[in-house]
Amino acid sequence: MNNADGNSPLRVAIAGLGVVGCGTIEILQKHSSELAVRCGRPIEIVAVSAKNKNKKRDIDVSKLRFVDDPLSLASDPEIDVVVEMIGGSEGAAKTLVETSLINGKSVVTANKALIAHYGVELAKLAEKSGVVLAFEAAVAGGIPIIKTMRDGLAANKFSRIMGILNGTCNYILTSMWETKRDFSEVLKEAQELGYAESDPSFDVDGIDTAHKVSILTSLAYGCAPSMDNIYIEGISRISLRDMRFADELGYTIKLLGISTQSDEGICQRVHPCLVSKLSMLGTVQGVYNAVFIESDFAGRVFLEGRGAGAKPTGSSVVADIMDIARGVKYKPFTLPVVAFSKSEFTGMDSLYGSYYLRLGVTDKSGVLAEVTKIFKEYNISLRTFLQHSHAPNENVQLVLTTHETQEANMLKAIESIARLDSVCETPFMIRIEEV
Amino acid sequence: MNNADGNSPLRVAIAGLGVVGCGTIEILQKHSSELAVRCGRPIEIVAVSAKNKNKKRDIDVSKLRFVDDPLSLASDPEIDVVVEMIGGSEGAAKTLVETSLINGKSVVTANKALIAHYGVELAKLAEKSGVVLAFEAAVAGGIPIIKTMRDGLAANKFSRIMGILNGTCNYILTSMWETKRDFSEVLKEAQELGYAESDPSFDVDGIDTAHKVSILTSLAYGCAPSMDNIYIEGISRISLRDMRFADELGYTIKLLGISTQSDEGICQRVHPCLVSKLSMLGTVQGVYNAVFIESDFAGRVFLEGRGAGAKPTGSSVVADIMDIARGVKYKPFTLPVVAFSKSEFTGMDSLYGSYYLRLGVTDKSGVLAEVTKIFKEYNISLRTFLQHSHAPNENVQLVLTTHETQEANMLKAIESIARLDSVCETPFMIRIEEV
Repeated sequence: MNNADGNSPLRVAIAGLGVVGCGTIEILQKHSSELAVRCGRPIEIVAVSAKNKNKKRDIDVSKLRFVDDPLSLASDPEIDVVVEMIGGSEGAAKTLVETSLINGKSVVTANKALIAHYGVELAKLAEKSGVVLAFEAAVAGGIPIIKTMRDGLAANKFSRIMGILNGTCNYILTSMWETKRDFSEVLKEAQELGYAESDPSFDVDGIDTAHKVSILTSLAYGCAPSMDNIYIEGISRISLRDMRFADELGYTIKLLGISTQSDEGICQRVHPCLVSKLSMLGTVQGVYNAVFIESDFAGRVFLEGRGAGAKPTGSSVVADIMDIARGVKYKPFTLPVVAFSKSEFTGMDSLYGSYYLRLGVTDKSGVLAEVTKIFKEYNISLRTFLQHSHAPNENVQLVLTTHETQEANMLKAIESIARLDSVCETPFMIRIEEV
Repeated sequence: MNNADGNSPLRVAIAGLGVVGCGTIEILQKHSSELAVRCGRPIEIVAVSAKNKNKKRDIDVSKLRFVDDPLSLASDPEIDVVVEMIGGSEGAAKTLVETSLINGKSVVTANKALIAHYGVELAKLAEKSGVVLAFEAAVAGGIPIIKTMRDGLAANKFSRIMGILNGTCNYILTSMWETKRDFSEVLKEAQELGYAESDPSFDVDGIDTAHKVSILTSLAYGCAPSMDNIYIEGISRISLRDMRFADELGYTIKLLGISTQSDEGICQRVHPCLVSKLSMLGTVQGVYNAVFIESDFAGRVFLEGRGAGAKPTGSSVVADIMDIARGVKYKPFTLPVVAFSKSEFTGMDSLYGSYYLRLGVTDKSGVLAEVTKIFKEYNISLRTFLQHSHAPNENVQLVLTTHETQEANMLKAIESIARLDSVCETPFMIRIEEV
């Protein structure tokens, strides 16, 4: 073990006693003797802090030293590691992490928003103090994706990271299809069950997934995380109708976060995708997360596991604490900030892919000829064509899929198609991802 | 970085220039500048050794210092790490690893046979010298399964590790089904293609998988690897006929390595299994490997990737070398040998599971009644019953599957069934694994 302090305990403070904070405490308490053997030293919880001391929780925290002001943990000489479980990219969480790092305390957090927005500044502080800033739990809950890229696949040049990174969205999409209900109804239920926040926009609008993609991009390609260069589209426009069409074509609809690097640059995007029902990603159900990592020597590696919840996320938090206890000490983004490459980002226009397009039309006999004429103009080749039965008072729904083409061309074609007289609804497009 | 030597290069010697040895050199050369940045210091190949210096290889080794006697690497003061790629659990490989560790050199190897049989003795030598003995590449090729259990899921108590751990067997089984050919024919082709050895017994008899299972057992439950306490059954008796029946029942046949820990003890087994066609393990094709890890907090984590080949296995070898370059220093089996638990192993008799049973019978009308009578005697409940059409000169094939029952009872029932007058072939049983 690389532990200069021998068998002295690692003294940990936990700020924020929500779901993940409590899960972390549960593991540290339940497995304390095993963890001590595995780390070569004990891990001790020396203080906790939360907004409401007496709130009903799944675990008993009454025997732990309670501190009203979390910021006081950052200057407490009895604390080695501050575990930030407050959340949010600004305010108390940010101040606590900054101050702790400046004061020479290692920080473990599950806060993806904070790392996505301020990761570089915080990494600089950690490097300057020679302490650890670790955030395994920020991406994909119980799946150790960050450590896999940093350690297990460290010998590789990465080319594509792609995954289902938000359990709430995957739960909603899975449940919509299984129970044949529409988005708003399932969202309401998810909120009642506690799977979705009362303000669900971070999840369903794809922002949470984008935070995670920006972190994975940084780890994969050795650059600063960038939330400015990422295309984001959520799942709120996905309808059961599109799911039925997708199913008929052999696909299921998933919200994917995708980051690729090619000669043109890095492309980061979050949007709903049609993926094969039989593919690894297509079979990921409910709150599970999954990630594909493509690299030059290891090839394609796939990881699946629980993406959220007290226990899986707590498992990742404690793994980070164990790294510190064991003396395993990486830079926050593996590379030191000075070694980051200045990366070029590419937009969606240059994306090359296949597309699903649904059109609500009045006159079905003429429209297909007009659409294929437009496709031909933009050098787009039709792959499949599908038409569902429809109620007498509804528009006819035509569904087309294309072979691979450039997104810029596809968007121009859709603009032209939208102007056709017989097309009476806004055309709805979903990208098809071959996985 | 935990590198006491600052930016001095890590000096590596590679003994054995077969597929994986060459893959390792290719990565170290192609990515040398990236690896230096990621590790904070360069990694240099200072010597290589092989039986035949001038053999035609995929990479050019003519510029590297060639040493005729690999054992001389173990005492060369210019070498920090010996990469053992000779193979085999005895002889040159064993002597080289032992001597290197005794002489204070870290060792990286892909040699599962060596680690399964002599892991504890070698770990003691490594611990005594304070050096690293790492073997990520010994299990599941490019999938970083050892690091995942050691680091990413380190906070958990493991209960089940289960996977497809031998690419040759999975290739043969996949190819048998896809091309509708029998075992011997596909094996012959696999040998011609270089996917199977001229003596294929290590792979097809399940021994290679067993080596890997014993290593994973040690890492999961903190005990010494044991090849004495492992049930091993290979794939040579699997027929296309059984694959067809399995398919009809919704299953596919895979060779699985399984290690579980319960209150009764640890159970290690390697045998063909019926797994659902739609399950994660059921969809793993060709030379891919895959592993399920079940633990108390992270829940079920699934990893899939390339299980063999120069590049993926080389990726895992280089990841181990990078750990050493970075100063990340674990005990070989994570826990020090003195902390190993003395584990109880359980045999197959106490196994509880479902079964597939195929019977070749002459008189189909009477036999089902007799079989169900015997099942009842042993408290076994029938789940499905299937009968295929058959040629006039063939026996009637009856296929039965059972609900969960104890293996001891199942084996006794099969003995009784085999003695029935109308049962004219040895009954063939395959375990069904719910995944």
